[in-house]
Amino acid sequence: MTAPARFAALAALAVSLLAAPGARADEGMWLLTSPPTAAIKARYGYEVAPQWLERMQKSAVRFSTDGSASLVSADGLVMTNHHVGSDMLLKLSTPSRNLLQTGFYAPTREAELKCPDLEVNILWEIEDVTASVTGAEKSGMTAAEANTARRRTMAEIERGSQERTGLLSQIVTLYQGGRYHLYRYKRFTDVRLVWAPEEAIAFFGGDTDNFEYPRFCLDATFFRIYEDGKPFKPQHHLSWSPGGAADGELVFVFGHPGRTSRMFTVDHLRFDRDVANPWRLANLWRTEIQLQTFSGRSAENARVAREDLFGVANSRKAITGETAGLQDPVLIARKQKDEDALRAFVAKSPDLAKQIGDPWADLRKAHDGYRAWYAEDQLIHRLPLLRSDLFGRAMTIVRLADELPKPNADRLREYRDSDLENVYLELYSPAPISEKLEIAKIRSSLALMAERLGAEHPLVARALGGKSPQARAEELVRGSTLFDPAARRAMVEGGTKAVEASTEPLIRLARELDAENRAARTRFEDTVEAVERDAYARIAKARFAMLGESTYPDATFTLRLAYGPVKGYTDEGAAVPPFTDFSGLYRRADERRGQEGFELPARWVEARSRLNLSTPFNFVCTADIIGGNSGSPVVNGKGEVVGLIFDGNIQSLVADFIYDEAQNRAVAVDSRGILEALDKVYGAAPLVKELKGQGN
Amino acid sequence: MTAPARFAALAALAVSLLAAPGARADEGMWLLTSPPTAAIKARYGYEVAPQWLERMQKSAVRFSTDGSASLVSADGLVMTNHHVGSDMLLKLSTPSRNLLQTGFYAPTREAELKCPDLEVNILWEIEDVTASVTGAEKSGMTAAEANTARRRTMAEIERGSQERTGLLSQIVTLYQGGRYHLYRYKRFTDVRLVWAPEEAIAFFGGDTDNFEYPRFCLDATFFRIYEDGKPFKPQHHLSWSPGGAADGELVFVFGHPGRTSRMFTVDHLRFDRDVANPWRLANLWRTEIQLQTFSGRSAENARVAREDLFGVANSRKAITGETAGLQDPVLIARKQKDEDALRAFVAKSPDLAKQIGDPWADLRKAHDGYRAWYAEDQLIHRLPLLRSDLFGRAMTIVRLADELPKPNADRLREYRDSDLENVYLELYSPAPISEKLEIAKIRSSLALMAERLGAEHPLVARALGGKSPQARAEELVRGSTLFDPAARRAMVEGGTKAVEASTEPLIRLARELDAENRAARTRFEDTVEAVERDAYARIAKARFAMLGESTYPDATFTLRLAYGPVKGYTDEGAAVPPFTDFSGLYRRADERRGQEGFELPARWVEARSRLNLSTPFNFVCTADIIGGNSGSPVVNGKGEVVGLIFDGNIQSLVADFIYDEAQNRAVAVDSRGILEALDKVYGAAPLVKELKGQGN
Repeated sequence: MTAPARFAALAALAVSLLAAPGARADEGMWLLTSPPTAAIKARYGYEVAPQWLERMQKSAVRFSTDGSASLVSADGLVMTNHHVGSDMLLKLSTPSRNLLQTGFYAPTREAELKCPDLEVNILWEIEDVTASVTGAEKSGMTAAEANTARRRTMAEIERGSQERTGLLSQIVTLYQGGRYHLYRYKRFTDVRLVWAPEEAIAFFGGDTDNFEYPRFCLDATFFRIYEDGKPFKPQHHLSWSPGGAADGELVFVFGHPGRTSRMFTVDHLRFDRDVANPWRLANLWRTEIQLQTFSGRSAENARVAREDLFGVANSRKAITGETAGLQDPVLIARKQKDEDALRAFVAKSPDLAKQIGDPWADLRKAHDGYRAWYAEDQLIHRLPLLRSDLFGRAMTIVRLADELPKPNADRLREYRDSDLENVYLELYSPAPISEKLEIAKIRSSLALMAERLGAEHPLVARALGGKSPQARAEELVRGSTLFDPAARRAMVEGGTKAVEASTEPLIRLARELDAENRAARTRFEDTVEAVERDAYARIAKARFAMLGESTYPDATFTLRLAYGPVKGYTDEGAAVPPFTDFSGLYRRADERRGQEGFELPARWVEARSRLNLSTPFNFVCTADIIGGNSGSPVVNGKGEVVGLIFDGNIQSLVADFIYDEAQNRAVAVDSRGILEALDKVYGAAPLVKELKGQGN
Repeated sequence: MTAPARFAALAALAVSLLAAPGARADEGMWLLTSPPTAAIKARYGYEVAPQWLERMQKSAVRFSTDGSASLVSADGLVMTNHHVGSDMLLKLSTPSRNLLQTGFYAPTREAELKCPDLEVNILWEIEDVTASVTGAEKSGMTAAEANTARRRTMAEIERGSQERTGLLSQIVTLYQGGRYHLYRYKRFTDVRLVWAPEEAIAFFGGDTDNFEYPRFCLDATFFRIYEDGKPFKPQHHLSWSPGGAADGELVFVFGHPGRTSRMFTVDHLRFDRDVANPWRLANLWRTEIQLQTFSGRSAENARVAREDLFGVANSRKAITGETAGLQDPVLIARKQKDEDALRAFVAKSPDLAKQIGDPWADLRKAHDGYRAWYAEDQLIHRLPLLRSDLFGRAMTIVRLADELPKPNADRLREYRDSDLENVYLELYSPAPISEKLEIAKIRSSLALMAERLGAEHPLVARALGGKSPQARAEELVRGSTLFDPAARRAMVEGGTKAVEASTEPLIRLARELDAENRAARTRFEDTVEAVERDAYARIAKARFAMLGESTYPDATFTLRLAYGPVKGYTDEGAAVPPFTDFSGLYRRADERRGQEGFELPARWVEARSRLNLSTPFNFVCTADIIGGNSGSPVVNGKGEVVGLIFDGNIQSLVADFIYDEAQNRAVAVDSRGILEALDKVYGAAPLVKELKGQGN
């Protein structure tokens, strides 16, 4: 709760987004196609070489579970965060084998555990397809018609590319519609767990220390990519730095930041501040308490809900910080100043002004209208029931039956040919599903609809079927056949006929909600999304005119480069040094004895005397990151691993919409800490050798 | 989260509220002026004697902190729940003496600790003043005018009574406006702490076991009332039962149930279900998470926030259960059936129909209108800032300056002469105030206003004063002089002039919000409260016509009688026996080892072998209770203490609007368990002797 205390100080120091590139500080999540080569050279004297960049690109790995990772050995070893891999750790656990609690290590290839439904991607090629995509727009089209035309064109470009190259092909909308890039990925689905620590050390300090610094977490996990049943032999991979990074050393982060709002208009930020974020927070608070009470009822409940609970608490803390920043008039004024400068620039050029019109007003109008039906959009379009694994799969089955018979370009975007492999991977996953947790989630989602729309709203009444949320949830889950992957596959293979004839209660519910859900989605796409794309494309035009191409787009969960030195900062007058070490870990554990989240695993208690306690454990650097960057490698100028991003500090929570070099920090596990722990706590000598490039 | 599972079963068994009195089961929170003598006699053959009833009335004690209690010795010893007294335990604690953690025992009178601001009341006299109050209504008045006229009359009746008798005089609005009773209380403000256990045993099982059964809690605390510096020698007190209660034995509960909605129209319940309860829950979820994160930051934070956190979690669980009940169409249908029967009765009598009109429609219209500004009412009228002790006091000071110069009948009701003593007791309390917790609460309240009304809403902007919620909260609290009771007193004594001249930041903020707050309050009183009083008075007339005077009014935090046998129940097919014992406590502690809320205090671990483990610890009975009844004595037919109410089971959470004898249960600490613990765990022999009436 005291986190926002420091935002005022931050604001006073914040660097304008529109400052000249040379003075831009270490801000930016840069496209690899337009790296800030000149700025880095000017400030740090370092030359970004194209070959180096390509090696970094092809060593970076994207997790389908919304995280980043990297190849760190010639045998396909992949490093990421524990909290990126923990979803798989849960899926590989059973009531009697809780990998989150015990950790895991496979000393041999044979002992590695295959993940049930993990897809990882490596970015192989990038092509600018802006002209083709925007070429779909015809003059006289409304924004909604243009949006639909672009989507159809994108679907066909993706399908063509995929057929031609065999690579997963996805078009990324950059600069909120200012550019369209086609990304082609190598795709892997045989990924195996090699090593994971106990959650207690990976997430040491729990929610209290989350997003804080100094920090003491071994938030690391290793997987291995397999191809044709054998360890993948990558063309490129990162090597391990022998000495780690030094204070002040320039480092680079290659990863997949998920989403930012830096280019948003100030009115759009106000919409987030007053409408979207309060809604999100309210649902996070609600879900967190409900998961806590569910978890309290038994150890098994706690085990199956752990991942959800972590995710919710993590989002809650992040959005709390972001919202506190948005509620700070000083930060809003700073964004306003930047916006005013851009608009003044436009006003000075009649041609440009005529060309772009008034996108700020168009956005304001769309968002003002959206306020009135935002809640309905969240409840009917973004169906909260989709939190349920079973309901989500029921909906997928119903949608596949409807969408597959259509031409590719006419389908809902997530059922385009280029996405189907991943759809099936998730749909047929053999990962276990907890009946109790499903009942709790469906009850919660039905009750949410009743709380927000009223229990007798026609859609809610239909979803409840004359029952209470609890009774209805029990009926739906206990009567479901979708726990069995084979039953799901049979239903899909039966096509439309099987789905229409099905008496499976969740399939019936999904069909019951289908029409309203599609209508609400169309309303959103036509009246909000289409206006945003159109208006932001024009704003991007203005920005390019003013700043040239050397700006970075908002985050899109695609590969970006961030950079900056290892560097401490000052917080409330006190110096925060850049590195922590193992001795600090034990000190904090001693201080907080008895508090949830601060209990060291037995292995760590026992290893205390064996460890070199001055080994660097965590460190901070100024690189500009955000959620999705979790698991990104931190590399030095030679491209050697010196760390592993796992968090931002509390001051970085406003990074969604503003960056400040004074206090924003990315938090990483030190490569030296990882090795020392693998060696002395986990006895994982073969893994240490592999990381050091000494073979097996 | 699985709590509501059982409501469907409950609904199927629920007994109609309108059944004939003879078949009424053990439902009801009865006025002592119209006890259900005939029903008790018919069902249990027990004769409620007037002298017995008077003794019970004058042994019952009301805590100003919203709880119940009873006199249990000739030396003014008062028994209540730990969770009723815990507010005082916090106020008597310091960073180095945490009474919630350690418990407390004063073996001598000298060692007893005086509470800083506790008032307790004993109900002495009751007078029906319905005719005088409703006599204030003149024909042609609007509902709002009649409401104001009644309020002015009530103020004068109370003042006259208080001047004449010296007793605290309060008029209670019964049957939602169907009757007005003047209650006169003996008032005590010198109350001292005698004994309290550790919170860990008082609230054993924490949030997980709260509202559940079987149960194992020593939720008991003893205080002593002093008069003129000496232990109070009461005219009546309860004696201690030597043998406790037996399974099936008829017992009685005398206490102060806080609030129920049993007489609400079905549309009014729908309003609660779809508007009021979702609002309350959303704020509880929010506050609970914020208090948790605040508490995680240090042990001292956890200490000062503990009471608030308990209160919020407790309300959250209660309202969750109540809302789940309201969301059950089966329960709503049952209420509808009762309402239809009453309306059919009215329709059959043209005179009555003409007299009462259509109060159901009037209520529906008022509540439909209220929906649109409910959020503003909650935020501007019920100012969330009042959660802050400091701001609450600032508001009191500002209001006293405005209200005291007015004639008594014209004042806001809480500043009438009859209430002033209590206003000053709280205002000048020397209880410590935590700066950190105050900052957190004010930040949270300001942010809540911003989240709900928008950060640039004029009132919010004024409250924020151009700052973020955090920066503004720090400024307000760190600049406040109101931590010092003497400063508060000086400000009050300075009157309007001192308040107007004050630069104290919270005083200035209170003045800033004063006008909007008063306007919003008037709007609520005139358009909602006045209609409710008027319409429910007419519905009460219909109920009296149909059922006679032998119905009970909704709870009003005034003394009531409930009754029923000690009795187990069946839950999901399994028998739940009525009693638990100490052996069950240790078994549960063993099973849940390591889970928060289940750790036994050292004293209990150590005493295990000394205790008679078969001593009854907690038990359930069918008596109809609700929040506010906490601390009520459970007595047998002789008026001897056999237990101490501290909770209801999970099935009783719908008791706000419906009662069911099949599963609704009141949960009590067994009198035998209290004695055994006092004797063998706490070595409190003098206290045991006093309870047994063996003097000191």
